[in-house]
Amino acid sequence: MFRVPEKEPRAPNACLGPVSTQGPDSNYGDGLERECSRKSTQKLPELYGVGDPTATFSCDSSHLSSRGRVIKWFWDSAEEGYRAYRMDEYDEEKNPHGIVNLGTSENKLCFDLLSKRLSQSDMLQVEPSLLQYPDWRGHLFLREEVARFLSFYCKSPVPLKPENVVVLNGCASLFSALATVLCEAGEAFLIAAPYYGAITQHVYLYGNVRLVCVYLDSEVTGQDTRPFQLSVEKLEMALQGADSEGVKVKGLILINPQNPLGDIYSPEELREYLEFARRHGLHVVVDEVYMLSVFEESLGYHSVLSLERLPDPQRTHVMWATSKDFGMSGLRFGTLYTENQDVATAVASLCRYHGLSGLVQYQMARLLQDHDWINQVYLPENHARLKAAHTYVAGELQALGIPFLNRGAGFFIWADLRKYLPEATFEEEMLLWHRFLDNKVLLSFGKAFECKEPGWFRLVFSDKAHRLRLGMQRVRQVLQGTSQVAEDPPFCQAQEQRDQHR
Amino acid sequence: MFRVPEKEPRAPNACLGPVSTQGPDSNYGDGLERECSRKSTQKLPELYGVGDPTATFSCDSSHLSSRGRVIKWFWDSAEEGYRAYRMDEYDEEKNPHGIVNLGTSENKLCFDLLSKRLSQSDMLQVEPSLLQYPDWRGHLFLREEVARFLSFYCKSPVPLKPENVVVLNGCASLFSALATVLCEAGEAFLIAAPYYGAITQHVYLYGNVRLVCVYLDSEVTGQDTRPFQLSVEKLEMALQGADSEGVKVKGLILINPQNPLGDIYSPEELREYLEFARRHGLHVVVDEVYMLSVFEESLGYHSVLSLERLPDPQRTHVMWATSKDFGMSGLRFGTLYTENQDVATAVASLCRYHGLSGLVQYQMARLLQDHDWINQVYLPENHARLKAAHTYVAGELQALGIPFLNRGAGFFIWADLRKYLPEATFEEEMLLWHRFLDNKVLLSFGKAFECKEPGWFRLVFSDKAHRLRLGMQRVRQVLQGTSQVAEDPPFCQAQEQRDQHR
Repeated sequence: MFRVPEKEPRAPNACLGPVSTQGPDSNYGDGLERECSRKSTQKLPELYGVGDPTATFSCDSSHLSSRGRVIKWFWDSAEEGYRAYRMDEYDEEKNPHGIVNLGTSENKLCFDLLSKRLSQSDMLQVEPSLLQYPDWRGHLFLREEVARFLSFYCKSPVPLKPENVVVLNGCASLFSALATVLCEAGEAFLIAAPYYGAITQHVYLYGNVRLVCVYLDSEVTGQDTRPFQLSVEKLEMALQGADSEGVKVKGLILINPQNPLGDIYSPEELREYLEFARRHGLHVVVDEVYMLSVFEESLGYHSVLSLERLPDPQRTHVMWATSKDFGMSGLRFGTLYTENQDVATAVASLCRYHGLSGLVQYQMARLLQDHDWINQVYLPENHARLKAAHTYVAGELQALGIPFLNRGAGFFIWADLRKYLPEATFEEEMLLWHRFLDNKVLLSFGKAFECKEPGWFRLVFSDKAHRLRLGMQRVRQVLQGTSQVAEDPPFCQAQEQRDQHR
Repeated sequence: MFRVPEKEPRAPNACLGPVSTQGPDSNYGDGLERECSRKSTQKLPELYGVGDPTATFSCDSSHLSSRGRVIKWFWDSAEEGYRAYRMDEYDEEKNPHGIVNLGTSENKLCFDLLSKRLSQSDMLQVEPSLLQYPDWRGHLFLREEVARFLSFYCKSPVPLKPENVVVLNGCASLFSALATVLCEAGEAFLIAAPYYGAITQHVYLYGNVRLVCVYLDSEVTGQDTRPFQLSVEKLEMALQGADSEGVKVKGLILINPQNPLGDIYSPEELREYLEFARRHGLHVVVDEVYMLSVFEESLGYHSVLSLERLPDPQRTHVMWATSKDFGMSGLRFGTLYTENQDVATAVASLCRYHGLSGLVQYQMARLLQDHDWINQVYLPENHARLKAAHTYVAGELQALGIPFLNRGAGFFIWADLRKYLPEATFEEEMLLWHRFLDNKVLLSFGKAFECKEPGWFRLVFSDKAHRLRLGMQRVRQVLQGTSQVAEDPPFCQAQEQRDQHR
């Protein structure tokens, strides 16, 4: 395991990535919102998976600072799969041989409902107050709606308060701001892995904060009742490991419903994790961006804001956004809920860099206010469509004999393709991922989520039936060895093939 | 002068503020977008004007990191005047004794035109692509419009290119991103003072980058032809001064038209500054957010993008936004233009924290595309209204015998109130500012712009006639010693009075 440097990094190979408590192969989960891939050719022998951007910029012709080069490198390396997709996007009529994207976690099932609602005449309101500098916490009318909305949908025991709300342009920004105001540079958050890999960048790029992974196993052992189960014992061990390495852990990040597992935590589990954090004086950042995307109603999701009593309310900070639950990742609306007014104010101070338009604030207030539409139109239809799509993909995987976590929340299925790797290595995982991409279907590989077992993949199912069918057909072709590389591959594909064989 | 620490700061009194090359009284320009004031009671004897947030948080009950406390302190200290205004905002009917705001640089003259244009039916378009993850550089359709818009209004010799454009949620974010990708922590930009003080925070809060002030004089000496004139000689001296102190300067920030002076640079001056930067290998960040707010047409404004040849195009980065020129600071739209693709990519990588809604991107493309409306409706009317408002306030100042810079650009007049200070100190400047606030008119004092001469104030004139009249009447009352404190001051005012007398 490598040490976290005290000062600003000079090169990523000395500092990036979560701190492993398990061995020397710690590395970073790449990401972007559309976490897909990195260039497999950029790696260092001593730290598998960690690329070396300095090689690309050895002559420093870029005129960037060293951290600027790291920031750019994250973009370049994480964009490969997504860039290939954007250059060759599947379209039923215009580009039927294009790439089907089962990698990016977006809900594409309800644009009809959303377009209709957002096009209504109540959505376009232009008042002078909306065109002037706002309160950087967000306009009061919006914070009031957010408080009402969260009180209702999180089933809070008492009404939530507008003064505890800060709105901003998405949860990526919120991770960045919270990391900066809660941690010193070089300090860390605990997080259970596999996890949504983009968080690595969100806390690092501006905040220079690291992640300490609590690596979870697929094997069910000891007290576990399910694969990849998080327990207080594992949290304690990871914290001790970090401590013994001199890494200062300042908080714990919980994702509920979990991405990529689809797990939801029981109230008892939540309380145990929160008590663990309280005992150690740790902040808890609870990411609940999929809370309304629990399509299996019987599961009984519990928001952390539904708990009767928080063990340490001054250190408990909740995030939610419309990106996932309202299928609008391009709208850029997220919110913090915290009782800690100092944290709220410090985040608000950074919100001059994360602000959203007054016109959008008005639109979001109207949307969140419309419980009739949400309850009677949007949520029932969205859940039904998610369930149908999940059922289809789950059925396909079953037919292929592929083990997977069969959950009822989120947009994705965490699938076990380990038997398709000739060797249990991340190189082989990457090669399999490239075979999928060559066969025009984009998935997300487990390494992007810091999964410690090579061979797990995340498949996003929240898409229209015809794209799912085609995507799953292409997945099947690869796994059954019947795929055919297109006769006339476009430039990007040829480039990737070269990369692949280097 | 204090040294810039190599590592992350532990407390602001050891690190904040621009690096002075003139003596021991270096300090920080506060700001926020609505740069108004700080708490005058928060200061350290050895560094006048630099407050001590650690005193407020000595018990660390906030659970914030040390940089989080600094970030919060910037908010708390900079908000005083603006907070007073928001708690007691003037309204002709509802609150005629409320505070008139001549401090915040917003254009409130054209909300009628803007509301009408932004309410047209072409402004509300909801397409799936707008609701999905965007290209973080901005949607291509918008970057194409920005390139066309800037080509036309900046009079570029050749058409500007969409691939050199990055759009994001305002120039505050752009300063933050550029500082981070161009400089290491602790490095610095040169900037001529007085300057728009909020830039201090924008480059510091996330980026930990400082400003080295090139202090300008009101007295016209040597080769100068106007007060506060920037020259290459002064730039060279400031750079040498920073160098002798061990401060690494990475770039130069130019604001054109200048805030708060209202000056515009001639093409010859621009070229000289750019050549100076090229000689020293410095980046140049050119802030042109007031470029269409040159209401004195005869002045002949020249954008840096109009130059036939840039001395160092790979190190020249231009910013523009709709906040000022379209009077929409609450809309949050700004743009970078740079030929350096590495810089563009690195900024884009940070744009996941500075993104703006796809719906707003669509609106901005429609607005920038509408040259008919801009040329035939908006700009002529906006300029006429700005000119009339300027004429009124200039006339009032003349009647009072107050010297000021009589310029034809921007929303503000830089006025010399030095004769009203019993002593030439910043304490007296602050006391005068408080007397204005007590008499219910909010101005901006020179210290907030790092002006080295106490007694200069910025008056914003881009407001409706009735508010200007009342505001100027209240200014006159204070200066003529005829003001009366309200009989029943609200809490915030009483609080400020106590602060004032500590």
